[in-house]
Amino acid sequence: MAEPKQERAVRTRDTILTAAAEIFDEYGYSGASINKIMTRANVTQGGMYFHFKSKRELAQAVLTHQQEFVDPPAEGFGLQGLVDLTFFTAHQLTSNVLFRASVRLAVEQGEFGQRDDTAYQEWVEQLYVHLCAAREQGELLPEVDERELANVLVGAYTGTQIFSNVASGHADLPERLVSMWRYFLPAIATPHGLARVELPAHVARLAA
Amino acid sequence: MAEPKQERAVRTRDTILTAAAEIFDEYGYSGASINKIMTRANVTQGGMYFHFKSKRELAQAVLTHQQEFVDPPAEGFGLQGLVDLTFFTAHQLTSNVLFRASVRLAVEQGEFGQRDDTAYQEWVEQLYVHLCAAREQGELLPEVDERELANVLVGAYTGTQIFSNVASGHADLPERLVSMWRYFLPAIATPHGLARVELPAHVARLAA
Repeated sequence: MAEPKQERAVRTRDTILTAAAEIFDEYGYSGASINKIMTRANVTQGGMYFHFKSKRELAQAVLTHQQEFVDPPAEGFGLQGLVDLTFFTAHQLTSNVLFRASVRLAVEQGEFGQRDDTAYQEWVEQLYVHLCAAREQGELLPEVDERELANVLVGAYTGTQIFSNVASGHADLPERLVSMWRYFLPAIATPHGLARVELPAHVARLAA
Repeated sequence: MAEPKQERAVRTRDTILTAAAEIFDEYGYSGASINKIMTRANVTQGGMYFHFKSKRELAQAVLTHQQEFVDPPAEGFGLQGLVDLTFFTAHQLTSNVLFRASVRLAVEQGEFGQRDDTAYQEWVEQLYVHLCAAREQGELLPEVDERELANVLVGAYTGTQIFSNVASGHADLPERLVSMWRYFLPAIATPHGLARVELPAHVARLAA
């Protein structure tokens, strides 16, 4: 039986998005082209234009689908879950090309005249859920505002990975995250929370 | 008397750098061209190539001369000086085109195949000097490592300004900095230091 039309369209769209992420990761936005992406995805011009009309539209899609490109461990909410998530995404930045391309486009979006904070806001939401769980588990100090802190952490993490990228191609990101948490945890966690949360004792440098 | 040759060369180089920063700020790296920059600087092709051979070399120079483009208030060292510096540079990002262009190129440097952490490291040095003064003034907790914290703060500030830029064109950066400091200060400052440092009570939104 032939694959239903709609399913095939979804599959083609996914194939194109993956190819686009790979090309943007390799060439950056200005070095990428819709032709390179078509070749990588092995789709016809018709197939491409049915889904995406321009390189910019493709970059926009890769940027905003950031959450689909990572599959964080489901278990562990609260403060430990939050800390683990930052180390998990650090590894994804070196091992997962789709995620890395999406993050790169989110950072370099000025290059294609974009100003879109969707990817950032989605991370704020994820962190907010962890912080609400941390609150319920008695891990957060009373003066912490969960939404404000989620915003602060997304900003701090973003710059930490950028600095790590220019300094070492992300190799020293785990070390930098340990440092970041060393200076956040005492300001946000109750003694009970501090006692429960563990930073990785030995962080390996990632392959740059 | 004619201007000495060397002085004229320095002046021309400064004129070119300023024009380059303006063009990169307006068009981004890929939209900029050496012709646009020559026209803006009002220099001949010979004058340009004496100093800079390519668009990439120009971008590199604008990126690494970041510290020359800002002139932070000299007074006030220690924790208050550090806090003030972050709000000062926030205003510079909206009002000083040379600084904004340099920061933009430092963030988007992947677009021209660059990986240079000079601008980041120079900020680490500046913050480190403030933190050493804070230490001497008894403002820092014993567990604070001045160099490590300087690195953490440069990362956190970088991402905070990027998030603010995509969310509001830097308009909400002062608010975001107040939030950032709310969650750093308790982890780094002694009671004596906390009592001496003031965050701006009312932060105005900047013109985006």
